[in-house]
Amino acid sequence: MSENTTTTSGKERIVLAYSGGLDTSVAIGWIGERTGAEVIAVAVDVGQGGEDLEVIRQRALDCGAVEAYVADAREEFATEYCMPALKANAMYMDAYPLVSALSRPVIVKHLVRAARQFGATTVAHGCTGKGNDQVRFEVGITSLAPDLKCLAPVRDLALTRDVAIEYAETHKLPIETTKHNPFSIDQNVWGRAIETGFLEDIWNEPTKDVYSYTDDPTYPPLPDEVVITFKEGVPVAIDGHAVTPLQAIQEMNRRAGAQGIGRIDIVEDRLVGIKSREVYEAPGAMALLAAHKELENVTVEREQARFKRGVGQRWTELVYDGQWFSPLKHSLDVFIDDTQRYVSGDIRMVLHGGRATVTGRRSEQSLYDFNLATYDTGDAFDQSHSKGFIEIYGMTSKLAAARDVSFGNGVDLSAPANLSA
Amino acid sequence: MSENTTTTSGKERIVLAYSGGLDTSVAIGWIGERTGAEVIAVAVDVGQGGEDLEVIRQRALDCGAVEAYVADAREEFATEYCMPALKANAMYMDAYPLVSALSRPVIVKHLVRAARQFGATTVAHGCTGKGNDQVRFEVGITSLAPDLKCLAPVRDLALTRDVAIEYAETHKLPIETTKHNPFSIDQNVWGRAIETGFLEDIWNEPTKDVYSYTDDPTYPPLPDEVVITFKEGVPVAIDGHAVTPLQAIQEMNRRAGAQGIGRIDIVEDRLVGIKSREVYEAPGAMALLAAHKELENVTVEREQARFKRGVGQRWTELVYDGQWFSPLKHSLDVFIDDTQRYVSGDIRMVLHGGRATVTGRRSEQSLYDFNLATYDTGDAFDQSHSKGFIEIYGMTSKLAAARDVSFGNGVDLSAPANLSA
Amino acid sequence: MSENTTTTSGKERIVLAYSGGLDTSVAIGWIGERTGAEVIAVAVDVGQGGEDLEVIRQRALDCGAVEAYVADAREEFATEYCMPALKANAMYMDAYPLVSALSRPVIVKHLVRAARQFGATTVAHGCTGKGNDQVRFEVGITSLAPDLKCLAPVRDLALTRDVAIEYAETHKLPIETTKHNPFSIDQNVWGRAIETGFLEDIWNEPTKDVYSYTDDPTYPPLPDEVVITFKEGVPVAIDGHAVTPLQAIQEMNRRAGAQGIGRIDIVEDRLVGIKSREVYEAPGAMALLAAHKELENVTVEREQARFKRGVGQRWTELVYDGQWFSPLKHSLDVFIDDTQRYVSGDIRMVLHGGRATVTGRRSEQSLYDFNLATYDTGDAFDQSHSKGFIEIYGMTSKLAAARDVSFGNGVDLSAPANLSA
Amino acid sequence: MSENTTTTSGKERIVLAYSGGLDTSVAIGWIGERTGAEVIAVAVDVGQGGEDLEVIRQRALDCGAVEAYVADAREEFATEYCMPALKANAMYMDAYPLVSALSRPVIVKHLVRAARQFGATTVAHGCTGKGNDQVRFEVGITSLAPDLKCLAPVRDLALTRDVAIEYAETHKLPIETTKHNPFSIDQNVWGRAIETGFLEDIWNEPTKDVYSYTDDPTYPPLPDEVVITFKEGVPVAIDGHAVTPLQAIQEMNRRAGAQGIGRIDIVEDRLVGIKSREVYEAPGAMALLAAHKELENVTVEREQARFKRGVGQRWTELVYDGQWFSPLKHSLDVFIDDTQRYVSGDIRMVLHGGRATVTGRRSEQSLYDFNLATYDTGDAFDQSHSKGFIEIYGMTSKLAAARDVSFGNGVDLSAPANLSA
Repeated sequence: MSENTTTTSGKERIVLAYSGGLDTSVAIGWIGERTGAEVIAVAVDVGQGGEDLEVIRQRALDCGAVEAYVADAREEFATEYCMPALKANAMYMDAYPLVSALSRPVIVKHLVRAARQFGATTVAHGCTGKGNDQVRFEVGITSLAPDLKCLAPVRDLALTRDVAIEYAETHKLPIETTKHNPFSIDQNVWGRAIETGFLEDIWNEPTKDVYSYTDDPTYPPLPDEVVITFKEGVPVAIDGHAVTPLQAIQEMNRRAGAQGIGRIDIVEDRLVGIKSREVYEAPGAMALLAAHKELENVTVEREQARFKRGVGQRWTELVYDGQWFSPLKHSLDVFIDDTQRYVSGDIRMVLHGGRATVTGRRSEQSLYDFNLATYDTGDAFDQSHSKGFIEIYGMTSKLAAARDVSFGNGVDLSAPANLSA
Repeated sequence: MSENTTTTSGKERIVLAYSGGLDTSVAIGWIGERTGAEVIAVAVDVGQGGEDLEVIRQRALDCGAVEAYVADAREEFATEYCMPALKANAMYMDAYPLVSALSRPVIVKHLVRAARQFGATTVAHGCTGKGNDQVRFEVGITSLAPDLKCLAPVRDLALTRDVAIEYAETHKLPIETTKHNPFSIDQNVWGRAIETGFLEDIWNEPTKDVYSYTDDPTYPPLPDEVVITFKEGVPVAIDGHAVTPLQAIQEMNRRAGAQGIGRIDIVEDRLVGIKSREVYEAPGAMALLAAHKELENVTVEREQARFKRGVGQRWTELVYDGQWFSPLKHSLDVFIDDTQRYVSGDIRMVLHGGRATVTGRRSEQSLYDFNLATYDTGDAFDQSHSKGFIEIYGMTSKLAAARDVSFGNGVDLSAPANLSA
Repeated sequence: MSENTTTTSGKERIVLAYSGGLDTSVAIGWIGERTGAEVIAVAVDVGQGGEDLEVIRQRALDCGAVEAYVADAREEFATEYCMPALKANAMYMDAYPLVSALSRPVIVKHLVRAARQFGATTVAHGCTGKGNDQVRFEVGITSLAPDLKCLAPVRDLALTRDVAIEYAETHKLPIETTKHNPFSIDQNVWGRAIETGFLEDIWNEPTKDVYSYTDDPTYPPLPDEVVITFKEGVPVAIDGHAVTPLQAIQEMNRRAGAQGIGRIDIVEDRLVGIKSREVYEAPGAMALLAAHKELENVTVEREQARFKRGVGQRWTELVYDGQWFSPLKHSLDVFIDDTQRYVSGDIRMVLHGGRATVTGRRSEQSLYDFNLATYDTGDAFDQSHSKGFIEIYGMTSKLAAARDVSFGNGVDLSAPANLSA
Repeated sequence: MSENTTTTSGKERIVLAYSGGLDTSVAIGWIGERTGAEVIAVAVDVGQGGEDLEVIRQRALDCGAVEAYVADAREEFATEYCMPALKANAMYMDAYPLVSALSRPVIVKHLVRAARQFGATTVAHGCTGKGNDQVRFEVGITSLAPDLKCLAPVRDLALTRDVAIEYAETHKLPIETTKHNPFSIDQNVWGRAIETGFLEDIWNEPTKDVYSYTDDPTYPPLPDEVVITFKEGVPVAIDGHAVTPLQAIQEMNRRAGAQGIGRIDIVEDRLVGIKSREVYEAPGAMALLAAHKELENVTVEREQARFKRGVGQRWTELVYDGQWFSPLKHSLDVFIDDTQRYVSGDIRMVLHGGRATVTGRRSEQSLYDFNLATYDTGDAFDQSHSKGFIEIYGMTSKLAAARDVSFGNGVDLSAPANLSA
């Protein structure tokens, strides 16, 4: 497409994040009617699978879009969005590897790019008004292009599901309408998020039909041993075969998914202030994260590793909270990248029955020193230093304890009842 | 025993942390010979199982101790040491639930108590000079009793294993001597730590004989569903039956252990500056931690939960690093206790094949609000607030982005190769 | 007044935070006209000085309030709001001791109390829609009484200044109207905040007429030496005379104010996402904070003090951000209180020419140990421990450095140009 | 000098950090006698002033050094050590701008460089065994050259002051010996540190003869206005004249010193576990830090600034604790550098009577937006967004408060005694 194709109709233009589903198909016409603008549909492939994207593109045109584009962002998503999350060991609330939160910024980037290309003044998306994704879209958009306006037809133009169904039927749009779709699903190559009414009762257990990326871990196939090779925090080979980040995730999705690895079920703190019940599957992500963390244990210096945990937590919160393009996120990224300089080597894992278990690690950059660690002959650790170390290391606590004792606040040492002589 | 039973012999007295094994049995005589002091052996029961403690007590006397005591610290250990770790979600390096690090301070407390009671001036322990435990013992001792001296015969009096075997045989001590004991094990009710020469090659996988608290998760029995009831962060009932903290850990050790839950294998950063390979089993601890974390997700406010992660990490580092009795640890404890006020309710878990999976949660203190979370009828969330929220929430990033754009530092939006029209 | 005096008129009731100034005087009638509700005016004395509060109370009635109350919250404010800020060493952006941010929650508490007493359903305040105070009022109100509604007539009912002047003149309200009041001032016993159009150009220097609590530090009187006695973090005596927290602040306001201490001029990050230029005066607060910090240096253990800095920063951000009544703020409070156990003793300061300089400190709870610190005879520090300490303390950096060297990433030691022989 | 000039005498060689004073002059011969090694004296000019360095070099040779070198590290120190501290706003315990702690690593670098050049196996320094500097030297040395050994003759070879005086007199060394030198001073261009027996009583006030870089602020000259121009966090011009970092510090030392700015007197937490009383002067550093912080207030985004405070604190602790060359310090540096991208512009200050007061700031990179901040005409802030923002921003606290109320834990609103009607 040509640069800065501006409208010749004189109408304002709106770029719509298009999924191919009912809501965004109806939104094309709905936005047009409500605002008088032309709608350009943009679908971004982040590895969500499902329908052929050329079919989706055609549907957008059939629904009234003046232009429709498909961007294949799969390699870009894996390399520039999933790999930073891996380096950060990103797990929101120690559990959720940021599946949807990671895809929003790459989609935003393509939406803004299209807005620039087609002279649009507004970017529209299909999110509701009570989730995180509306924030991720809109803060992302204004962080890339502060002049663009944002529009959420569901939230701002009263495009409810019932309205959408009626509109689709009235206008005979080429899209299936079902009164009740029990699942709300978002998926990409890094994972899959599932919400459904049944799970809104948090005492209920997920049913089997909730899952798609993972088989049931209760009845696994034989154990699968895999060796993942990392270079500077990023997987570069699996079982000795070179892989791109995308291929690494895809292969681990397949192999870890077959073992039922990476099912997640939590009550989660949303940015908009409520708690919600979320179920996820992320087999490849969870296996890669486990491998990466253990390789860090071997190769990252202790104080750097301890501080990095806090950095990784803040990184994760920022990304969850829609601040991918914020200044702080950028500064945390350069910190994290600096810690990955030596995170290179092999991790051997066994995948089985829902577990991704590290069984071996080796690295030329290892800080593990056999001669210092061993209790066998060859021990190079000079134990005579320890006495002085302990004396000075414990000094501040000792002085504080002496004060406690002198003020009668020492730990109570009176006889417990159960001491027998 | 009577208070302040001081020595009538005129000799100095040393309290020895006694395990009943070769090293500390030999240490009784060895310390006596090297220092001229009388040795009082103290064994502390923290749920390590193994030999009868009365047998151990008698052995200490047979090896030359002037006094020998056994303290049953199991309930105290579970309540005052394991439960705070549970409330803190304590996992060193996100993996290790502080098995040995937790037991040291309660043992220290009983050693110091005995030192006071018997008029001892020194406390001795069997640790080497390159591990964490020497620090935990000695910093703990001087933090409770700043005037006491510490002695580590292995480190300070050259009591090597070969020396110990020869001494035991020469003096016909009632203790088995084996030239080569491949395992170095420390265990208590919260878990079990295993070191062995074979694992010092970090590419080697643990062999099956390493484990004792857990069965092989590869071949599990049928799934085991359990409901754990917490009150203010502490388990108070299992499947409806009231339990003490000790009983809760013991029952979960049994049930989660049968499913192979809680095996841990990591390269770990020691306080003394080296990395070491450690294998642990902690079935009950790991299952309880998983349940507790999810109950916190349901009942703790978001910002409190986010900050608590950092507090929990620092708490864990301090305890790992031997600072149980330090002023900072105390202040972190009161913070953590304050967060547990509403961590009450039920967690339903399925234990199976190495996995402890939460499948349901319910709490009268829940902050999860169905009416705010649901997408069904009854939705009480006023979506009209979101637009204003996003506008102001995203303002600082938007202003920073506008500056980036004006200085030519905006995100690159040029056409990627893979955009298809 | 009696408990739960509910309206007999059948009208809804609104409690208004009343200052006695033009905006809130007009608001009484304006709210009544716009909403049909009865207005109850509540003025809270937080030591702001100025007009007699009985005069203010009468003015509210004259302007149409159905009830008007004055709450003397000065001791409460000093003890329960300023003292926690002192213990936290609260300085937003390392500069601003939270003057207005501290008074909002105590005012909120009295407003909510009045709402309960008079059966009001709404609380109104005079804030605009772009400052922090609207957030502090409304989040505070809903954090104390989740059922109450909030109303900001300036923001929600279009009560602009011009409108207010016209309304006051039309209705002949007993309040002075000036077209242009250059200063927007908020003051209480902890300090004074000044905004004015002239200062919105951040290159402009504040003019002398901006200040009221402080004299010009350029021409100070003779130096003033003061000894402040603290108990558990709180001032209890000045120059040997017992004081309440309120008296301590008042006396230090007078004495430090005379020396021009505590003028602050910064560009500040507001919660609503913009930067604003703010000028403050807080002579007593700044002098007390300097004294308190140095007493902590003497009495708080190092690691506790280091972690407390981060806790204090978060506490300060939360309070600035209107979260006084939030769960995290409460947990941080218990942490901070725990650190103050031994913050007792005397600080001697010299107040002069804008500077509050600590010149001496003494405390029975001091952790400063002359015998350990001195380089003179009597030195009790055993320097032989240092070698071992350094060896182990520096181990992780040394191992990392050895890796750097072996991978060619060591620090560049090639000859600099300026080395002369 | 030539590369790798190794010893031809067959003797081991030791590089000594040489100050020209009594202790290190005696150490040359003392080390030689005690170890049999040849001593190479290296003096590093970090702007300490005092004696001519050529005189010092000759003295080293006269005292027996086989080689003696002087390295002019002033520009290097200012640019590579002081400027990072400025960017980090480094103030240990919020008070001390790391005077000595900053110079140690640059001295270490030159010592290690000399050791490589002259084939030395050991580096020696004149520190005692109870201060921070021994740690900074030795951890620095082994972090640059893990194979080098360290030697501290005062600590390791019993070279006490009395011994040094006797040795100097016996050997007729060309160095003044005074039984009692009351001051222990360390100085460089960034500041000056003073310890003395009189100050070890922490109730004593520093006497006037303690200071050298600063005049008495009690009797200042006329106010001095200065405009400092920064580029990316570093001063590049003063009053419009271009300066190097070294020149910036020197000029501000002169001008702020004349006004008595930058005197510091604190009780400080040493790395070796004790508290010590320290007096410093750092006029240029303190003025530059005040200017830099305010320019950050204007140009750094809020969340980046908030997180940077914690990063700066950790950076400062690491540098104070001798970890300049550690991996974590490096990662924190890249974080900090990233935050400085837009810290460019002018700060106008008035220096007077111990105060460095910012009176104006301007920057093309400013995030302060007059149109958003003003309350005058031209206000571009859309206040209608605030209601929605507050509603959602305050949601988690509101839900937690509702729980508090329902469990009877709400804030007590009962009538205080002092409410008057």
